[in-house]
Amino acid sequence: MTRLLKAEPLTAAAFAPFGDVIEVDPARSFDINDGFTTRVHGLATADSDARVILSIFQGRPRPLTVSMLERHPLGSQAFMPLGGRSWLAVVATDPTPEACRLFFVAGHQGLQYARGVWHHPLLVLEGPQDFLIVDRDGEGDNLQEAFFETALTLSV
Amino acid sequence: MTRLLKAEPLTAAAFAPFGDVIEVDPARSFDINDGFTTRVHGLATADSDARVILSIFQGRPRPLTVSMLERHPLGSQAFMPLGGRSWLAVVATDPTPEACRLFFVAGHQGLQYARGVWHHPLLVLEGPQDFLIVDRDGEGDNLQEAFFETALTLSV
Repeated sequence: MTRLLKAEPLTAAAFAPFGDVIEVDPARSFDINDGFTTRVHGLATADSDARVILSIFQGRPRPLTVSMLERHPLGSQAFMPLGGRSWLAVVATDPTPEACRLFFVAGHQGLQYARGVWHHPLLVLEGPQDFLIVDRDGEGDNLQEAFFETALTLSV
Repeated sequence: MTRLLKAEPLTAAAFAPFGDVIEVDPARSFDINDGFTTRVHGLATADSDARVILSIFQGRPRPLTVSMLERHPLGSQAFMPLGGRSWLAVVATDPTPEACRLFFVAGHQGLQYARGVWHHPLLVLEGPQDFLIVDRDGEGDNLQEAFFETALTLSV
């Protein structure tokens, strides 16, 4: 029997236990550059015991089932979509199917997973999409994985 | 009399004195996530004497003239376009009109200005565009500005 995981709306409050939503927020906005740029300041802070790097992830569509989670105990990891297309995030406080939560993320929204937060690898929708990634690089084991006996099916 | 500054093609080698080009590079790519994601690894390293934050800059078109430069002595600053549209970068080794160089940056390309590199504030093309910014946040004066007597006119 397959367990179904339903998507919930993404809000900063709902996502707070897992990290930060990276999106335009008038409360954090002010003008710079003689008024030609609005800076939406400090949407997330990179958290790392080593250097912080910028990378690009090129995500490709995959079956919308979840049979494992991973986490990075040594640093945060931020995902910002570069193609303007919506995507999915599965996060959990414990690495169990019961604890998983599914968020539908709009194409103008990024997420930063806080250090140590269980999450599924990148899930794109509507075809391949590139993401800018801000995460930790350095010595040490920064990847832990947990596998489920029965897969979750995602319901968007 | 106005001095004209002509755009040059953006390559990693041409931009090396000023920082990093953030774009897909097969030489830095490898597959992760069971083959569903290609990681283009470590295109830039954030450089900061304090915390590293993620922000969004909402850039609006402005006259394509350059009469000042700025720099951030305490950290690097990365710009990644989120709308897929081309933009311009003016950088210089010295804060003089003669030292300025103009790069035409494609919509899939980001740039990181290295710590202390003179550059012009954000210059968008083809209408407003949002950028993901990775830079330094913390105490201390991280902004220096230099003003020109005669403006440069940009020639794209």
